[in-house]
Amino acid sequence: MSRTTAAVVGASGFTGGELLRLLAGHPEFEVVQATSRKYTRKTVGYAHPNLRELDLRFTDPEDLESVDVLFAATPHGVSMQHVDAFRDAADTVVDLSADFRLPSADLYDEWYDGHERPELLAEATYALPELNREELPGADLIAAGGCNATATVLGLLPLVDAGVIDGAVRSTAKQSSGEGSDPRDGDQRIVVDVKVGSSEGGAGGGEASSHAERSGVVRPYAPTGHRHEAEIEAYLGTRVAFTVHAVDMVRGASATCHVFPDDPVTKGDLWGAYREAYEDEPFVRTVAGGGGVYRYPEPKAVAGTNVAEVGFELDPRNGRVVVFSAIDNMMKGSAGQAVHAANVALGFEETAGLEFAGLHPVGAP
Amino acid sequence: MSRTTAAVVGASGFTGGELLRLLAGHPEFEVVQATSRKYTRKTVGYAHPNLRELDLRFTDPEDLESVDVLFAATPHGVSMQHVDAFRDAADTVVDLSADFRLPSADLYDEWYDGHERPELLAEATYALPELNREELPGADLIAAGGCNATATVLGLLPLVDAGVIDGAVRSTAKQSSGEGSDPRDGDQRIVVDVKVGSSEGGAGGGEASSHAERSGVVRPYAPTGHRHEAEIEAYLGTRVAFTVHAVDMVRGASATCHVFPDDPVTKGDLWGAYREAYEDEPFVRTVAGGGGVYRYPEPKAVAGTNVAEVGFELDPRNGRVVVFSAIDNMMKGSAGQAVHAANVALGFEETAGLEFAGLHPVGAP
Amino acid sequence: MSRTTAAVVGASGFTGGELLRLLAGHPEFEVVQATSRKYTRKTVGYAHPNLRELDLRFTDPEDLESVDVLFAATPHGVSMQHVDAFRDAADTVVDLSADFRLPSADLYDEWYDGHERPELLAEATYALPELNREELPGADLIAAGGCNATATVLGLLPLVDAGVIDGAVRSTAKQSSGEGSDPRDGDQRIVVDVKVGSSEGGAGGGEASSHAERSGVVRPYAPTGHRHEAEIEAYLGTRVAFTVHAVDMVRGASATCHVFPDDPVTKGDLWGAYREAYEDEPFVRTVAGGGGVYRYPEPKAVAGTNVAEVGFELDPRNGRVVVFSAIDNMMKGSAGQAVHAANVALGFEETAGLEFAGLHPVGAP
Amino acid sequence: MSRTTAAVVGASGFTGGELLRLLAGHPEFEVVQATSRKYTRKTVGYAHPNLRELDLRFTDPEDLESVDVLFAATPHGVSMQHVDAFRDAADTVVDLSADFRLPSADLYDEWYDGHERPELLAEATYALPELNREELPGADLIAAGGCNATATVLGLLPLVDAGVIDGAVRSTAKQSSGEGSDPRDGDQRIVVDVKVGSSEGGAGGGEASSHAERSGVVRPYAPTGHRHEAEIEAYLGTRVAFTVHAVDMVRGASATCHVFPDDPVTKGDLWGAYREAYEDEPFVRTVAGGGGVYRYPEPKAVAGTNVAEVGFELDPRNGRVVVFSAIDNMMKGSAGQAVHAANVALGFEETAGLEFAGLHPVGAP
Repeated sequence: MSRTTAAVVGASGFTGGELLRLLAGHPEFEVVQATSRKYTRKTVGYAHPNLRELDLRFTDPEDLESVDVLFAATPHGVSMQHVDAFRDAADTVVDLSADFRLPSADLYDEWYDGHERPELLAEATYALPELNREELPGADLIAAGGCNATATVLGLLPLVDAGVIDGAVRSTAKQSSGEGSDPRDGDQRIVVDVKVGSSEGGAGGGEASSHAERSGVVRPYAPTGHRHEAEIEAYLGTRVAFTVHAVDMVRGASATCHVFPDDPVTKGDLWGAYREAYEDEPFVRTVAGGGGVYRYPEPKAVAGTNVAEVGFELDPRNGRVVVFSAIDNMMKGSAGQAVHAANVALGFEETAGLEFAGLHPVGAP
Repeated sequence: MSRTTAAVVGASGFTGGELLRLLAGHPEFEVVQATSRKYTRKTVGYAHPNLRELDLRFTDPEDLESVDVLFAATPHGVSMQHVDAFRDAADTVVDLSADFRLPSADLYDEWYDGHERPELLAEATYALPELNREELPGADLIAAGGCNATATVLGLLPLVDAGVIDGAVRSTAKQSSGEGSDPRDGDQRIVVDVKVGSSEGGAGGGEASSHAERSGVVRPYAPTGHRHEAEIEAYLGTRVAFTVHAVDMVRGASATCHVFPDDPVTKGDLWGAYREAYEDEPFVRTVAGGGGVYRYPEPKAVAGTNVAEVGFELDPRNGRVVVFSAIDNMMKGSAGQAVHAANVALGFEETAGLEFAGLHPVGAP
Repeated sequence: MSRTTAAVVGASGFTGGELLRLLAGHPEFEVVQATSRKYTRKTVGYAHPNLRELDLRFTDPEDLESVDVLFAATPHGVSMQHVDAFRDAADTVVDLSADFRLPSADLYDEWYDGHERPELLAEATYALPELNREELPGADLIAAGGCNATATVLGLLPLVDAGVIDGAVRSTAKQSSGEGSDPRDGDQRIVVDVKVGSSEGGAGGGEASSHAERSGVVRPYAPTGHRHEAEIEAYLGTRVAFTVHAVDMVRGASATCHVFPDDPVTKGDLWGAYREAYEDEPFVRTVAGGGGVYRYPEPKAVAGTNVAEVGFELDPRNGRVVVFSAIDNMMKGSAGQAVHAANVALGFEETAGLEFAGLHPVGAP
Repeated sequence: MSRTTAAVVGASGFTGGELLRLLAGHPEFEVVQATSRKYTRKTVGYAHPNLRELDLRFTDPEDLESVDVLFAATPHGVSMQHVDAFRDAADTVVDLSADFRLPSADLYDEWYDGHERPELLAEATYALPELNREELPGADLIAAGGCNATATVLGLLPLVDAGVIDGAVRSTAKQSSGEGSDPRDGDQRIVVDVKVGSSEGGAGGGEASSHAERSGVVRPYAPTGHRHEAEIEAYLGTRVAFTVHAVDMVRGASATCHVFPDDPVTKGDLWGAYREAYEDEPFVRTVAGGGGVYRYPEPKAVAGTNVAEVGFELDPRNGRVVVFSAIDNMMKGSAGQAVHAANVALGFEETAGLEFAGLHPVGAP
């Protein structure tokens, strides 16, 4: 049986390498092209030491081959320029940048600089199956979510669906543009405090991401105004006050969401909400208390995997629900999410190529 | 000129060692005793490799010598049992545990188990000069604040004093017990999200604090109900919803406070508030934006020092002020604060023995 | 088709958990028992957060079930006591402790305390397929090598086979006891300087392995006299002067071997020797120079995998060959090696269950 | 009393910042100039967050002021170009680069590219007081040693002086050029295996030193042919086979030296040799066995200090002495050594400005 052919554009970067790793171990895909302007003609192992066994060389991104699926792991702004070439080369395009994540051009313009192909924003499908699985089959332009947004959306989604967050309504990409109430109208003040690893910055890095400067940090790198705020609000239908800190790990994003419901909730309510949302999800597990060392979601527990851990604790004294969410930003927050979405879009087994269980113990993930 | 004699009780622990380091380099103090039940008769260098040059051996805590100042670095609950012996041995007792921090027995009982000497809670003086410098001269029972509380109080104090936090009134230890409005009555919902290093757990450590399990973590270790919440509320006069995460550093506590003022504030207002509060403080510096790699408070920038960095950013979209505060939990959050308070209490130069500027670069502090 | 049943004894420790992870993902094995005295009746996810999805509970080690293969991941000295029970329960026993690694009782007594079942030392089969693949098929008592020994043996084996190390002759376990020349007679002075991660110490850990004390270390923890010296000499037939340092990673062992050949060698000779030794080996890759960031073997490049990276550099000025070898101590240095050996012993595909390619980038492995 | 004026050229780099920190806290020096081409007119706190309190701005290196002492912390090759300007501006020049370390132009040419001012090599004085204290008073061109060389020289010097290393004779800079026996003639094969932190690479950093790639590494970054080999051999008079690994710390260099003496030595001999060499040295302490967690030299124990820890262990089985040496590469290996040498040269108290005792616990130093 012939396999589905895949290309990775921007394959020498971190998420590009992660895609290559996943696709190379995927039972349905055959990687036929990996492009890199910088490393053209070098083996993929040159950039990614874990892939030294892979018999594949980087090619020039100008020479795209015809494939079934093209994954674009290019910097923000690149895909929107080359999207026609991508779609000419492939039946299905999965983009991992921010270019097609937001539901509307207006929202995009508010948070980024002008979009070159605004009409495609409504056409693209958001890649988070836990949010919009039913929209993915047959989708031909798929946009993987941002890592911090993904962690936050997965953490809060059960509370949105259960009505714990007053006025919030989950929304899938293309329905949310322009209709319904503005999430900013509510007086909900959900604080989201995110901690992320250095791989979020991508390969390359400057002075601030040098080992000497970044090692051991707790650094407020996006105190306010992080663009993922837009993405979260668009899909959760509720306002979030978002702050991101860099901490000393390489992989991982951990979102702690502080929610103050209007009406009291019990732990039983919370367990019910998370069970309802995720009991059939192959890549989300709820971890809330219990014993042992790992009692709440932790990036270490999911490093290298496509799993999101979500959990919560109740703070009756302050009328607060604290929600924790932990993912591997390179996996559930990027390449893993993209492959998961492609699996759904193409009708493959959802978990195909994404079965890795993670490691214990492991250092900084 | 004869120097002031000092004893450190509980000197083999982390904060005990830090006290020894500071006192050994202090121009006014002479350390005449360092007790450790576990390491009696061993040199202090046995427990603290940085103090190998120090000609001092641990002695049994039962045999206290007469000194001018006794610093107690014992686990919570020990000082309240031995406080009479401490006061017999020394004119001034500085306690670094939680035993005498809270202003009233009622509050203590609510957060801890029953106090053995509740009448002393009102007698003890809180050790944070930035909060209550005027109460320290001549104080003979001084209680150093908790590390997470200290970071939070220093971050928020300027906003309290400037009236940005509605209804909050700074309070010093002994005035706050039982009078005034209950901070919990307000509808302020200040979220405080703290990240701490492994030295907070003290020497010894079990499975959860082993290197293999704790390395690289972002671990919610006190999701709700942390006891420092009581301390913060008592001295700031405002409710806080507090959550603590363990991250991969050894020294350091970083508090990020999310404040939603009732009335709009400007950056100029904030700069004014912090300048007003701290421009004459020798151990607090305000870092808010600007350029370079270190644009906001970071534990790395103050590791080993008694400095607190505080800073802020404005989030007009969400009506939020984000306040950052970073300290070395062993220094400003414990031993350094204790020595600073002792300096004030005894009329020494405030910065005596606390001049170390910190290192750059430095790894996990 | 029925699968091969497997039990893991000592399953709550680090290597026990790694075995569970590998066997749960193995196409041929079905794990029917995981014992833990400490965690009897708890789910395996309690001890190993990456295995939370696994529907398996720890059972009492006294109640062994009948299985095809029993893997023992118990502390040194336990297997020799229970080996009869293990062999009653299972057709094949794979032991991961030091109990059956050495070829003779005399050698064992020299390095450890007296063996309880010395006659089994000659009966057991060493588990390193690259050394003695031909002895493994049908073996029913298999001893996985020590992690540091494995790294060193794999690094030096090509030089032994190529005659670069004067007088050294590779030896498999049961031929080496008592016959041939004593490796200590030669005047070769191979220095082996090993760097290891904290998982080598196992779960639990005391003060020295606490995060605060072990974070960021370069600590000589076995300056001389490490027991793996015996194992290396037994199987390589040459003396090594061995020193082990603890460094800041969780997984990983990196051996740097400094060899001074009697006769000059060229880089071509070295490439030939390593190609000859390993070109058909599925789990060894030679990395020696070339470009990019990862130019020599590194633990990071093999974290989580069963791959050993080996490489070398020539130092003509000093007449020295420097050999580098990097493994994941939990995998190629323990659980992965055990499963690999079991695959060979039972006639399975050698790479079955061991295909994970590793991650890039990754933090402290 | 007027203080000695000092300038730091290249003050925005890591060692430049360390010099500023030391000189700012030095009782004899007054820093009047800190140059940086890149950050001209910015405050020194912009580059060095620990120096935010310092009221000093970077100036253009073209405009040197007249000072008593000029410290040059510029990249290799810069000082030799500007040395006349430096000497015009200052009575004493202390250079921290490699430009004036080696004793002869021939040796320099062998290891570096041609020297522009070869005649100055014999004129400059090596800055390691433990090696050549008597040459420093009055020296006006002083060359601080390389960090890895310093660690190695301090570790092995007692063995050289005690005759344990056959044929080796300690040599001070200017006597060693061209005379005496070639250290390479001996058959001593001292293996030196060094582990270093990321600050050795200096500020800036490329892909290999990014946090994501460098975190958690054990990376052979100078397998053979490291230039410090020349420096060690020149001053110890014995050949060393040198290999350097990058490990996960920021500050620190740890040298493990494997020595095989021709004649047997005892532990008593070794203790005698180290006591003889260092008992009066203010910045060297011998740590060899004993109890506690820190039983041998460790970079963590000296982070931020000018102390070198040296120690040893005997390996009778292999006829080997293992020597350990640990320093902070920024301090004893660079800026601290430079200030120490300046103290000796100018007749100040040797320990002036260098009293910091270090921290315990501390993370990656």
